[in-house]
Amino acid sequence: MNEETQAYLKSAQKQQVNELIEWLRIPSISTIPAHKPDLLDAANWLIKNMESSGLENVELIETDGHPLVYADWLHAGPDKPTVLVYGHYDVQPVDPLELWETPPFEPTVRGDDLFARGASDDKGQTFIHVKAVEAFMQTEGALPVNIKFLVEGEEESGGAEIAKYVPKNKEKLAADVCLISDTGIMSPTQPIITYSLRGMWAGEITVMGPTSDLHSGMFGGAIHNANQALAELLAALHDTDGRVMVPGFYDNVTEMTADERAVLAKVPYGDKELLAISGAPAAYGEPAYSVVERIGARPTLEINGMWGGYITEGFKTVIPSQAHAKVSCRLVPDQEPARIGKLIDDYLQELAPETITVKVESRGAGAPAFLAPMDLPAIQAAARAYGKVFGTEPVFKREGGGIPIVGDIQRELNMPVVLMGFGLPDDNLHAPNEKFHLPNFWRGIETAMVFMEEIVG
Amino acid sequence: MNEETQAYLKSAQKQQVNELIEWLRIPSISTIPAHKPDLLDAANWLIKNMESSGLENVELIETDGHPLVYADWLHAGPDKPTVLVYGHYDVQPVDPLELWETPPFEPTVRGDDLFARGASDDKGQTFIHVKAVEAFMQTEGALPVNIKFLVEGEEESGGAEIAKYVPKNKEKLAADVCLISDTGIMSPTQPIITYSLRGMWAGEITVMGPTSDLHSGMFGGAIHNANQALAELLAALHDTDGRVMVPGFYDNVTEMTADERAVLAKVPYGDKELLAISGAPAAYGEPAYSVVERIGARPTLEINGMWGGYITEGFKTVIPSQAHAKVSCRLVPDQEPARIGKLIDDYLQELAPETITVKVESRGAGAPAFLAPMDLPAIQAAARAYGKVFGTEPVFKREGGGIPIVGDIQRELNMPVVLMGFGLPDDNLHAPNEKFHLPNFWRGIETAMVFMEEIVG
Repeated sequence: MNEETQAYLKSAQKQQVNELIEWLRIPSISTIPAHKPDLLDAANWLIKNMESSGLENVELIETDGHPLVYADWLHAGPDKPTVLVYGHYDVQPVDPLELWETPPFEPTVRGDDLFARGASDDKGQTFIHVKAVEAFMQTEGALPVNIKFLVEGEEESGGAEIAKYVPKNKEKLAADVCLISDTGIMSPTQPIITYSLRGMWAGEITVMGPTSDLHSGMFGGAIHNANQALAELLAALHDTDGRVMVPGFYDNVTEMTADERAVLAKVPYGDKELLAISGAPAAYGEPAYSVVERIGARPTLEINGMWGGYITEGFKTVIPSQAHAKVSCRLVPDQEPARIGKLIDDYLQELAPETITVKVESRGAGAPAFLAPMDLPAIQAAARAYGKVFGTEPVFKREGGGIPIVGDIQRELNMPVVLMGFGLPDDNLHAPNEKFHLPNFWRGIETAMVFMEEIVG
Repeated sequence: MNEETQAYLKSAQKQQVNELIEWLRIPSISTIPAHKPDLLDAANWLIKNMESSGLENVELIETDGHPLVYADWLHAGPDKPTVLVYGHYDVQPVDPLELWETPPFEPTVRGDDLFARGASDDKGQTFIHVKAVEAFMQTEGALPVNIKFLVEGEEESGGAEIAKYVPKNKEKLAADVCLISDTGIMSPTQPIITYSLRGMWAGEITVMGPTSDLHSGMFGGAIHNANQALAELLAALHDTDGRVMVPGFYDNVTEMTADERAVLAKVPYGDKELLAISGAPAAYGEPAYSVVERIGARPTLEINGMWGGYITEGFKTVIPSQAHAKVSCRLVPDQEPARIGKLIDDYLQELAPETITVKVESRGAGAPAFLAPMDLPAIQAAARAYGKVFGTEPVFKREGGGIPIVGDIQRELNMPVVLMGFGLPDDNLHAPNEKFHLPNFWRGIETAMVFMEEIVG
């Protein structure tokens, strides 16, 4: 990258952040139906910015859910590779709102950090690539590669529409490699190449006892309390080592090789880092695996939400009629989401005593896990780009989260996927006070540009 | 009871109901601060009615909460017993309002039933004793016993003021027996003597894991989910037979004698009745005890409310920072509420793994259980009164609920308590469409009168 480009990037930093702040003001929470108009606003804002950044054929694609955004620039020549950039403009819900130091949709810079819902996940990281295009156009008037963008508004709510769109638009989306920035690195000075993502199954468990809430004086001792019955079922999902007790759960889990475990052992993250970031009193989970392996290479079953009976201020001595849990599994290769849902249902039906009934309802189709070979040329190009911009060689890691569309892109479009993230472990994704570390935002734009140069070869 | 009195009671029925309807129109909901003036209105209405019924020294007693009402008639002579009648003029909230067939404070007679909030609990049952006094005064010009009334306005909201008043006014309230109508009978033709009430300990359990909610992708598998940890702790509170597993929980439980179990076996209530009323798929609880025994004579530990993580619409893949449960125990003689709270705390601290912390906070001081010997002369007098008026001998039963003041009266005023109720199982206490069965109201007045005659001996 020449000095002129370096100077441009330096001079453009403030404007880039101001534009991102504008986008972050739009509360595009995809899981809450009342925010539907905000999703459309966020998509349209992106379209305008893409156009002014030099992208072409910018298009709002209506769907049965929230719209997709497409754009491209295809003038590098047919001998040059084509990169498909994926991102998402929708964000997570914001509760508990009272824990935010500044409101989630009033983006605020404190020190080197920009605080707002979506700052890192994923508006900020998606925007990196739009600004990388703009930087090339402003300095060179052209990109070293052909580029296509596909940005969705349902990543946080299941991604149903993009999953339908991709298989029907294989030619339009054809490319040599898919590039996604929706993951994290270790620290501002230690980049990471993520070569695996966990998949997902999600569902809701409902325990039903008496037909309405009962007075515990009149019935207590002779009726199975639905809260208690749910707790008893949920407690049977794990053993004391954190291993999931659902029969068949681990049947198709691909074990790591010794070589891979050696690579993962280089990730500078263990109990100490985990506890410092989370504030938990002690680490949890399968003793035979390191923390990095537990998070990246082992499946889980989490109780994301749980409720039943009288849960507001005061006290009411009820025996609740129903109790509920929202649960989800992070899956690894080669677990199938639908099969996992069925195994959980079968197990709970088997455990359920005659005093209650239980039902398990899947939410969406789930997503399989993703795994890419570490020696893929595109992954090696990303490693060189990180090394040049950050001045440190990246480590290789499996990510514990998922990006639903990654499996579809790999499978349907038959192209390798490179996960080049710029988030940090303390970015508070899906939590109050989400932030993006602005030096990473700017280094991200530069790394995206160097990646395009490196992939040309 | 002579024919003249019988004729009087028959002629007075309509007027008695009309007066009760007037009282029921006042929405004296003690748990809702906006209704404070209505509580005062309800107390003053009672005072006027007591005066016109022939009671003396009628007094509104101001408190830091809702007022108490006192009245007496003490001219039977020092050789005659003194009866202290307790009742309450406050009522439960009325939501969900849309489920009432007629408005809760527009009392309506349909068939033999009077529908209104408070009709049975406890304005109607308290009023029985005022009208019994009036009937004696109108026919005999005197009562066979000395009588005192103490009526509170906070029974549904904790009863803090009467609990302070009673120990400070032992001489004023001195009597030979306390008579309370705030319980039920089996059916219009099957009276019940309730000789035991369960006590109460209540508290809140909080499990604390990481300092804030975490992304299950970034941490799942290496952090103990607070919902899961709470479920694991709550599941350890009972064995599969419904026995409470807290060490020491049953230490001071007084076991029933074979004689008492034979008496309770006569209560016509079992699995069939329990399931018909509750709609539960099967009965629950300690197999060695009948349903009537489990509800009346065995202690419980109920999870009245439970919540943690993401519990609103949509889905969020969080690992929650905290999880909560509101729990309460129905206690039997001779369990001490404070000791039970400590045993639960000790047990949970012992069970808690190092991956989380747990705290248990008691709510209020709790209440011990109440048990009166069945052969108590006052209870035998009540049994004879029921038998004469209803034409059927009463069965003897332990009630599963509690009346907070009963323990205080027994302990502080050192007198036996007779629970002589006239409610029915389908009176919809604390629920929409509360009612009082009018034949029970009138039989109640007669039974109260016969009780006074019987207790003189």
